[in-house]
Amino acid sequence: MDYEKVTTPSELKRLNINELDGLCASIRERIINVVEKNGGHLSSNLGTVELTVALHYVYDCPKDKIVFDVGHQSYTHKILTGRGKAFDGLRQNGGISGFPQPVESEYDAFTAGHASTSLSVALGFAEAAKQTGENSSVVAVIGDGALTGGMAYEALNAIGSEQLPVTIVLNDNNMSISKNVGAMSKYLTRLRVSKKYVGMKNEIKRAVSIIPLFGDGILHLMEKGKKLLKRIVLSNKMFEEMGISYYGPFDGHNVGELIDIFEQVRKKKSPALVHIITDKGHGLKSAVTDPEHSHGISSVGAMSSNDFSAVLGEFLTDAAQKDNRVMAVTAAMAIGTGLEKFSTAHPAKFKDVGIAEEHAVTYCAALAAGGVKPYFAVYSTFLQRGFDQIVHDVCISKHAVTFCIDRAGVVGADGVTHQGVFDLSYLLPIPNMTVMCPTDGDELRAMLEFSLTFDAPLAVRYPKSYVVNRPHNPIVYGKWEDVATDKNSLTYVLCVGGRALDIALTAAGDKKLNVVNARFVKPFDTEYLDGINKRGNIIITMEDNVRAGGFGMSVLQYLNSKGMLCKFASIAHDDKFIDNRDISSSLFDSGLSRENLLNVIKSLE
Amino acid sequence: MDYEKVTTPSELKRLNINELDGLCASIRERIINVVEKNGGHLSSNLGTVELTVALHYVYDCPKDKIVFDVGHQSYTHKILTGRGKAFDGLRQNGGISGFPQPVESEYDAFTAGHASTSLSVALGFAEAAKQTGENSSVVAVIGDGALTGGMAYEALNAIGSEQLPVTIVLNDNNMSISKNVGAMSKYLTRLRVSKKYVGMKNEIKRAVSIIPLFGDGILHLMEKGKKLLKRIVLSNKMFEEMGISYYGPFDGHNVGELIDIFEQVRKKKSPALVHIITDKGHGLKSAVTDPEHSHGISSVGAMSSNDFSAVLGEFLTDAAQKDNRVMAVTAAMAIGTGLEKFSTAHPAKFKDVGIAEEHAVTYCAALAAGGVKPYFAVYSTFLQRGFDQIVHDVCISKHAVTFCIDRAGVVGADGVTHQGVFDLSYLLPIPNMTVMCPTDGDELRAMLEFSLTFDAPLAVRYPKSYVVNRPHNPIVYGKWEDVATDKNSLTYVLCVGGRALDIALTAAGDKKLNVVNARFVKPFDTEYLDGINKRGNIIITMEDNVRAGGFGMSVLQYLNSKGMLCKFASIAHDDKFIDNRDISSSLFDSGLSRENLLNVIKSLE
Repeated sequence: MDYEKVTTPSELKRLNINELDGLCASIRERIINVVEKNGGHLSSNLGTVELTVALHYVYDCPKDKIVFDVGHQSYTHKILTGRGKAFDGLRQNGGISGFPQPVESEYDAFTAGHASTSLSVALGFAEAAKQTGENSSVVAVIGDGALTGGMAYEALNAIGSEQLPVTIVLNDNNMSISKNVGAMSKYLTRLRVSKKYVGMKNEIKRAVSIIPLFGDGILHLMEKGKKLLKRIVLSNKMFEEMGISYYGPFDGHNVGELIDIFEQVRKKKSPALVHIITDKGHGLKSAVTDPEHSHGISSVGAMSSNDFSAVLGEFLTDAAQKDNRVMAVTAAMAIGTGLEKFSTAHPAKFKDVGIAEEHAVTYCAALAAGGVKPYFAVYSTFLQRGFDQIVHDVCISKHAVTFCIDRAGVVGADGVTHQGVFDLSYLLPIPNMTVMCPTDGDELRAMLEFSLTFDAPLAVRYPKSYVVNRPHNPIVYGKWEDVATDKNSLTYVLCVGGRALDIALTAAGDKKLNVVNARFVKPFDTEYLDGINKRGNIIITMEDNVRAGGFGMSVLQYLNSKGMLCKFASIAHDDKFIDNRDISSSLFDSGLSRENLLNVIKSLE
Repeated sequence: MDYEKVTTPSELKRLNINELDGLCASIRERIINVVEKNGGHLSSNLGTVELTVALHYVYDCPKDKIVFDVGHQSYTHKILTGRGKAFDGLRQNGGISGFPQPVESEYDAFTAGHASTSLSVALGFAEAAKQTGENSSVVAVIGDGALTGGMAYEALNAIGSEQLPVTIVLNDNNMSISKNVGAMSKYLTRLRVSKKYVGMKNEIKRAVSIIPLFGDGILHLMEKGKKLLKRIVLSNKMFEEMGISYYGPFDGHNVGELIDIFEQVRKKKSPALVHIITDKGHGLKSAVTDPEHSHGISSVGAMSSNDFSAVLGEFLTDAAQKDNRVMAVTAAMAIGTGLEKFSTAHPAKFKDVGIAEEHAVTYCAALAAGGVKPYFAVYSTFLQRGFDQIVHDVCISKHAVTFCIDRAGVVGADGVTHQGVFDLSYLLPIPNMTVMCPTDGDELRAMLEFSLTFDAPLAVRYPKSYVVNRPHNPIVYGKWEDVATDKNSLTYVLCVGGRALDIALTAAGDKKLNVVNARFVKPFDTEYLDGINKRGNIIITMEDNVRAGGFGMSVLQYLNSKGMLCKFASIAHDDKFIDNRDISSSLFDSGLSRENLLNVIKSLE
């Protein structure tokens, strides 16, 4: 059965079980072909083909809601809901998103991209259905990795309390994004092992087929002592204690079995958790054997050798050798942030706390208070989760935590949910915080060297990669660096980060300019600003961050407070969310371009 | 034994059990007397007198770390660590803080104020001790309410995984700040009831006294089938499954018993949770019978009849009567945010999710997506926890969640951890967000009326109270309001909120001014600004928020982008944390005063 023949879920419902198996094979092939071309999340999507087919077979979307946690496993869902053909354009400019987007399809129940939100969303939908009298079912699909996020626990707590019919599918591949960590993970492993699900498929199928009503019915049968069922549908203490019925574990690659289960669970009037076991990357040999590297692959050939994360990893690995205080902390992003080498070189000094940014930030604060020198390597967009902890636990008491903020600025194909364009705005208002931005790998190294002796909260913020290393002046607290000076020019372009600097230097080929590396965003170089705040001068800031609350506004505020003599403009992202486009298009659209810089200068001259 | 005779924990260790009981009585009396005079948290502190005495008896602070969650139960700790005399100045200007503050005493291990941080802090301390070779013990004291916070779960997960010797004291009064909610709460209740701890004190004491080593020893004894111990020191499935040994529940008001327990637990080399039962407000009749109202009491007579929260509560209660879509959500702040009446009038439309702001925000987003009209009533400082969810789950898809942000601006005696001075800075950079600030109760009512038909994310931000209602123009999207106009004046004071407006109106008595109610902070009234952006004019913004990223910077950015003709200054909080001072002193210190406003105007003239 070709995936192209199924353009809506109702067409799916007409197929028989053999046809469904064929459909899964066709979808899997489609996913592999497109992701190898366009990049994207391969293994998580290959792991959920059968699950998604079974869910759409049983539930009636869009009336019923399937809420994908993170959403990096929603490709099959997209293919099944009218986007099989358009799937060619996955993660391309103007093409379909790699994550669920309600603006893209009515079948995408809710925006996703960050982990651990699906349970709150599902409970909200269930409560809304109750309030509005809508008769719709709600299913959340969440991976075992996302269960380490505290927000998921807050929602489990609420779901157990509210007792609305929310079905949670725990998609357990014991792998999540990088290595799965924490007590919950160990617990799930024990569940898996203790129940020996492998090889029991046929037994389960027979057993389930004789149950009239899953739930009360099954409990009744269990009380009667049917040993097989007891073995396979054991109530699970931890979830049961919270008021959530537990079923599983089941084989997540057996469509027929999954359909049987969901048909029964759908009838329940109270919360249920269905625990399924999947192979991440099922059907693709390399993804199964190396799932960490296959999790999110950029399109072939797009890997850059000039990744800031590589510099971070090398630096910290060396630093921990020389400085016993150094520790590295990450929240399920060991590889993405460059800490893989560190984790093997210094296992006792490396902590991957799982998807748990709130905990990570405060944990680092206490490490610092206890005499350790912690580096928290994190993506800009995910650090949003730790905002309160940065204020409350790190900055009030000035604990010397260094935040290594990767994927700052626009991120390209990961799209709207992952843009790192808010960090300057949420960090600059926090007292006691210092913020630096390197323009290349050598400068990042120098900043990290500086951080070793810096005894206060520090954020170092950079995008994925840089173009080229340039010679630099030494790092001096609060001081900027001249990169290109032209004594005949009255125009100063203050650049935050390498992307801005590269643009300004290109423009300097067409126009006499002073190009400044504003490496310290907070505190900034007031002496420098005082020196150039003169009548006739033009000062332009350029940053890969939203304008509101960013570097430009800070500079303008300072200039105004001193009596503004120069002319000023800021180039930054406008007040709108930035959709899935490649990085250079996103920058161009926001005016971070040579052309716009020259236009802005012209308009002020 | 008088509390004044114990000025360090080492003096405490010399006392015998009878003297300790007397000390507890003396401390309790001291707390009651001071809190009745100065305000503060009464019942939580009365509930933890014996616990704190026992902890300081067993552990050696400051080498050992006692980490108080939230810290609203740290008064006994303060009295025992050299601050018994200074306790008179609790929550007063220049006096001691109501929360732990390392700058105040080396015995205060870590800043606290927000809930659910203590477990992350404790694990950080334990890891730092391991890294640095320090031989110190770590205890976290956390209430059952704070356990609903997802961050606590993230840390439990890490603690269970790391297996460092962190001792968690679960101070269970089944009451937390307002009514305790959620599945975890029900679970703890079952634990409590099932174990019938009441009346077993003597049995426990005898049993514990014969155990040579708590931990392995006790397990050994249990295996031998000592039924009494099995009954009282039952391993608890949920915590045990996470790798954390569970002991309890014990009577939290029996000092001798608690000392016995902690002496044994201290020897353990792995994580332990000690579950104790306390009466919130123990020793004070009204606090026990009415603990919700005794939780945080302002000093006697300081209650204002002009609380914004009262307006919110009344409005929503009426609105839900007329508009079936309206729901009210709070995170353990039903009373503080004014929702008590709503909760009894519309129980099916009221959700207190417990201390779980992350979940609350995303839950509201899904409620809105499902056709409900949710109002999330929350303190400014606590909404910091939901920042990522506001960006990712509410604003990207423009879900019509209304945030009713209470305690915005400076908060007075609650001090540095509770200042609501960041919300404009973290809300204004978020696309699709509208931000309004009422200056009085009538205006809040009008804004809420407006919100009923407004179909996008909306934040309404206000401090605890207002002074007086003034007549108002109707709310028009994005438009400001003239409050006092003087055709002969070239000076315009753009006020955000009632505090700023009151100051400007007072100044208008001394000086010809145009006073503007900048009720829309985003989007702001560009037409108005264009009209007053003239040479010779002076524009001053005033807001009870930090300057960075606030209203003033937005206005300045706009004026500059249009070609700035006027002079401009912003009055706002400077870039530093604001300590425990009364509200008017805090405002005065930051220049939110008539005097400073007049000076600023003078400097621009």
